[in-house]
Amino acid sequence: MLDARVITALEEIVGLEQVTTQKADRICYSYDATQQSFLPDVVVHPANAQEISKVMLLANAEKVPVFPRGAGSGFTGGSLPTRGGIVLVTTRLDRILRIDGDNLVAEVEPGVVTEQFQQAAEKAGLFYPPDPASLKFSTLGGNVAECAGGPRCVKYGVTKDYILGLEVVTPQGDIIRTGGETMKGVVGYDLTKLMCGSEGTLGIITRIVIKLLPLPEAKKTMLVLFDSIDGAAQAVSEITRAKIIPTTLEFMDATTIDCVRKATGLDLPETAKAVLIIEVDGEQGMIERQAQRILEVVRPLGVVETRVADTAAESEEIWKVRRLVSPSLRKVNPDKFNEDICVPRSKVPEMIRRVEAIAEKYAIPIVNFGHAGDGNIHVNIMVDKKQPGIEEKAEAAIEEIFAATLELGGTMSGEHGVGITKAPYIPMELDPAAVAYMKAIKRTLDPNNVLNPGKIFLEDEKTFHRAS
Amino acid sequence: MLDARVITALEEIVGLEQVTTQKADRICYSYDATQQSFLPDVVVHPANAQEISKVMLLANAEKVPVFPRGAGSGFTGGSLPTRGGIVLVTTRLDRILRIDGDNLVAEVEPGVVTEQFQQAAEKAGLFYPPDPASLKFSTLGGNVAECAGGPRCVKYGVTKDYILGLEVVTPQGDIIRTGGETMKGVVGYDLTKLMCGSEGTLGIITRIVIKLLPLPEAKKTMLVLFDSIDGAAQAVSEITRAKIIPTTLEFMDATTIDCVRKATGLDLPETAKAVLIIEVDGEQGMIERQAQRILEVVRPLGVVETRVADTAAESEEIWKVRRLVSPSLRKVNPDKFNEDICVPRSKVPEMIRRVEAIAEKYAIPIVNFGHAGDGNIHVNIMVDKKQPGIEEKAEAAIEEIFAATLELGGTMSGEHGVGITKAPYIPMELDPAAVAYMKAIKRTLDPNNVLNPGKIFLEDEKTFHRAS
Repeated sequence: MLDARVITALEEIVGLEQVTTQKADRICYSYDATQQSFLPDVVVHPANAQEISKVMLLANAEKVPVFPRGAGSGFTGGSLPTRGGIVLVTTRLDRILRIDGDNLVAEVEPGVVTEQFQQAAEKAGLFYPPDPASLKFSTLGGNVAECAGGPRCVKYGVTKDYILGLEVVTPQGDIIRTGGETMKGVVGYDLTKLMCGSEGTLGIITRIVIKLLPLPEAKKTMLVLFDSIDGAAQAVSEITRAKIIPTTLEFMDATTIDCVRKATGLDLPETAKAVLIIEVDGEQGMIERQAQRILEVVRPLGVVETRVADTAAESEEIWKVRRLVSPSLRKVNPDKFNEDICVPRSKVPEMIRRVEAIAEKYAIPIVNFGHAGDGNIHVNIMVDKKQPGIEEKAEAAIEEIFAATLELGGTMSGEHGVGITKAPYIPMELDPAAVAYMKAIKRTLDPNNVLNPGKIFLEDEKTFHRAS
Repeated sequence: MLDARVITALEEIVGLEQVTTQKADRICYSYDATQQSFLPDVVVHPANAQEISKVMLLANAEKVPVFPRGAGSGFTGGSLPTRGGIVLVTTRLDRILRIDGDNLVAEVEPGVVTEQFQQAAEKAGLFYPPDPASLKFSTLGGNVAECAGGPRCVKYGVTKDYILGLEVVTPQGDIIRTGGETMKGVVGYDLTKLMCGSEGTLGIITRIVIKLLPLPEAKKTMLVLFDSIDGAAQAVSEITRAKIIPTTLEFMDATTIDCVRKATGLDLPETAKAVLIIEVDGEQGMIERQAQRILEVVRPLGVVETRVADTAAESEEIWKVRRLVSPSLRKVNPDKFNEDICVPRSKVPEMIRRVEAIAEKYAIPIVNFGHAGDGNIHVNIMVDKKQPGIEEKAEAAIEEIFAATLELGGTMSGEHGVGITKAPYIPMELDPAAVAYMKAIKRTLDPNNVLNPGKIFLEDEKTFHRAS
């Protein structure tokens, strides 16, 4: 347990009612979407950057680890309090400070829920493209810390591409501003982008300046069912070759389709072995022609059926298929490892073949879906945890999947981050000198290793007590 | 002078004919576009990353500064050998290694000239948007190191937005790969973006993985002359409000127009007090409608004349006006300070008014042109160096311009970087804690301060001998 003195000091900083040491409360902040759980000693809910700064000063003085947390929806354990200590929740910093249509800029606090911000922007005729699947509950601060992606990233890029500036509390408790609110800026090192995707290890985000786009005039959604995975993969290449970058190019393999059909009864033909959900957006006339061209290009590639949405409701119907994937998988098989590898887009067919071979070798069902347009495939290794030895087998399969990914010029994580679940595999992807360079940055900015220690890089210079 | 032993070691690393200590040769590498000159002790032309790595190992062992250099076309002295030592020229690493249309990716060495790469991409139906004015001679390595911009950045973003991965020789001589060739990737800190715009102080770029776009189908160029600067500025806002982001939105003020008219005899009416060059690109049908809409939107704002290019030759004619700006200014007034401030786009009219007031106060002509679409204005302070005391006056004017820029939420540099010319002003823009955070990164990665020392941050921990 933490010294009572530290708890009292925290209470002085954030107020009595914003500190909790009750076990029931601590359990609520002990887990994330990985389903792993680590009990913190204390949970604090600061109101602003000044309070967060004071918490960090205290943490350094007392050598207590601090684990910043948004909605706790991460897939790799980035926010888990693996060493007890303090969970610092940013959800009280939840104001949309401004949405400025003249400059296509917004300023928000980190606790704003992504979808709520998107809706506010759309009300002003503006557009915030990043759309992680968790957008209904994940926070923008978490999105920035993990550099979240989503289906629309094919055309529009990831969270990082929309972050112009930040206010950050450094590991040592300074409050700094990075970047700014201009579209360009090259004064000093780009701490803004360094912070994006650093998984809360280099600073705690307390304010975010966001770049917006004008809201596209219209969109058009298509569902195309193929009789083979190769046909669908080929379609992705042909669309790129036709010089069209759709807004989304989502993909589901045969096992995914089966799961959705079984779990939901949705009308998906048995002959369909792969699905693409293709959406284009922009100026009305242009997207009509793009949709036409896409259908022409994919037609010779074994299309079983095509559904084109003419109304918003029909588009909704198509997206339902995609949105039901995760619930369906959970229904069919509650336990799974979800990896989000990313390969150069032309390597998607080869990658799928390799995953199928690995699934066969280990006799574990593996379900693939995701963002084919940018090569980011969600590989779901379906396990029944009651089966003895299955987790070890699954881990061996995952290691082979990562090896294949890297061999094809890919990365272990397109959008979920490293956290703790992928940390052991870091040496497979990054060379030791690059890791040393990164760790040197971490060490110099957080010499006491108090901010989110043990994330991304496995070994640490210092270790702390585990929570009781 | 450097010890003969160091020269011999350099000759062993890169070969006898790739090392020069001749004064005439050293003079060639003593300057850049700032017109400042610092004589290096020796100039080396390595062939590859391995040789560069060995040079860095030697530099650390001998505590000799190394100044990496591409084409030496920078505007802020980023490549100047301010402390003698070694100039390391990267122009021999000049291969385009591959252009991959299936994955919309290219891989190049840093010495490739930007325009040559753009042309090679276009030949493959692909598009590399960043277009700094120096593109005919500047290198991609320099573009990345400075995070170069250009007119097309309004729509397409800056160099950084197109860099997926790098190979870098670290200040201590390790060769590391950062990022990758996938569209997404969140494994470890984003060293790629940290390197972009770090002005050669954190590593020497030896390979670049570039993201490409499909080449737009068509483009349309328009020249619109306004009877007031406010009309042109208002036009920029109205185009944004109409939800159109043009490819370029270039701006020239009355003094710029006068200079071009005087120097070239181009037909530009005397009543024109501001010019916008507006280009849209994309699908043919869409850009016709966008061009139409833009002309409708700007018409009530005091338009003196409109020229719309229907052919490539006519588009060329319009761009000639913009391209002749720099030569015209030089002809009218050979000495000038060129600053590239950037403000939120809605603040452009206010910024121009402030610059005009400062010009009047100091009785120095100031010419404004640049990228109005993203608020990036090139402010040219015209001086006659023969006039006594004029440089001091100009510097006072620059400081006032920077103060106004920052007051309006802008930055001192949109695309030129800090180098040595803006280093004294860093404390005006960045708070001390942010500078400390940046310097901590520099110090830990370059403990001997041998790689491009004295750039960006004025004070340094260690100083070296000046060249003879």
